Amino acid sequence: MEAKRWLEPFSTDVQADGTLTPERLTGEQRLSHLRAIYEAVPESMPDQVVYRVYSMPVPERASELQTCTTVLEPGTVGREYFMTKGHFHAVRDRSEVYLGLSGEGLLLLATEEGDHRVIEMSKGTVAYVPGGWAHRSANTGSDPLVFFAAYVGDAGHDYATVLERGFPILAVMGDDGPRIVENPRYRVSAA
Amino acid sequence: MEAKRWLEPFSTDVQADGTLTPERLTGEQRLSHLRAIYEAVPESMPDQVVYRVYSMPVPERASELQTCTTVLEPGTVGREYFMTKGHFHAVRDRSEVYLGLSGEGLLLLATEEGDHRVIEMSKGTVAYVPGGWAHRSANTGSDPLVFFAAYVGDAGHDYATVLERGFPILAVMGDDGPRIVENPRYRVSAA
Repeated sequence: MEAKRWLEPFSTDVQADGTLTPERLTGEQRLSHLRAIYEAVPESMPDQVVYRVYSMPVPERASELQTCTTVLEPGTVGREYFMTKGHFHAVRDRSEVYLGLSGEGLLLLATEEGDHRVIEMSKGTVAYVPGGWAHRSANTGSDPLVFFAAYVGDAGHDYATVLERGFPILAVMGDDGPRIVENPRYRVSAA
Repeated sequence: MEAKRWLEPFSTDVQADGTLTPERLTGEQRLSHLRAIYEAVPESMPDQVVYRVYSMPVPERASELQTCTTVLEPGTVGREYFMTKGHFHAVRDRSEVYLGLSGEGLLLLATEEGDHRVIEMSKGTVAYVPGGWAHRSANTGSDPLVFFAAYVGDAGHDYATVLERGFPILAVMGDDGPRIVENPRYRVSAA
């Protein structure tokens, strides 16, 4: 009998503001990190935090689940809502599931071929992001958009593909609320 | 280019009572199904629902995540709290994560060697159930215990091992609240 062959169970708590306690901040993205995803970030804008990610410490292997909360602040750059960088999974077929905890937003999805989808996110929304779909969240409300996410443990992140090509669609503030428009900066893969 | 090689993204909603909409009830356990896990179920007890499970429809493969909500009713059989059957994953090393949505309870964990742990569950608790740990929930409160769970897509369920051996510990109603006691009905594996 081989003792201690399994990981030790553990727990943490999601607070009302979306942070995990004890503090497990694993990513903080400010406007200055995100210039490339917007049409233009005015020099006059303060270098504010756009989103923070809080993660559970779990090995990156296929038998595990990575889990995190994301707190995406409200705001816009021009007419574009504050959004996450967006990424594919490095291991392309790995899926992810989101559970909305508070706030209002849109989950944008796109394949490498440029196919795209939009899912409205609010408290209680369970959104399934199958393998092959890049995913980006946009906060269309006036409060932070907070969601819980779980994904297959060895999925990894490929941010480069979205940064290079852009995303086929954008969430922008229209006169009557959020609108989805084609992204003029999107470059279809030559592959 | 191979179109439609990826699953279609989709979403559903968790209601305040823990159900998923549209209705996706995939399991309903009544007392009459659960006699074997209690010391004795009095003949006088009505055959009430102990818990229901609502699941997202996803293929059972390792690149996916299975996700569900569980609504575990409050109640006791003798001094034992209403609880789920408890199971190992058929693929033993597959992990799972819980997020408490409402109610109060205990998550009981045990390895095949009889090692055991307890995690308190309430709204906002994120509990990590590593591979190798059987898991059972007990409702120690007076409202339904509702939690969201995600697990690796090909994990499967092994209920038989827990049904045959029992669980090494039990959650019982003490004079001053919930207590964890050794389970006199537990049979350690001869392996």
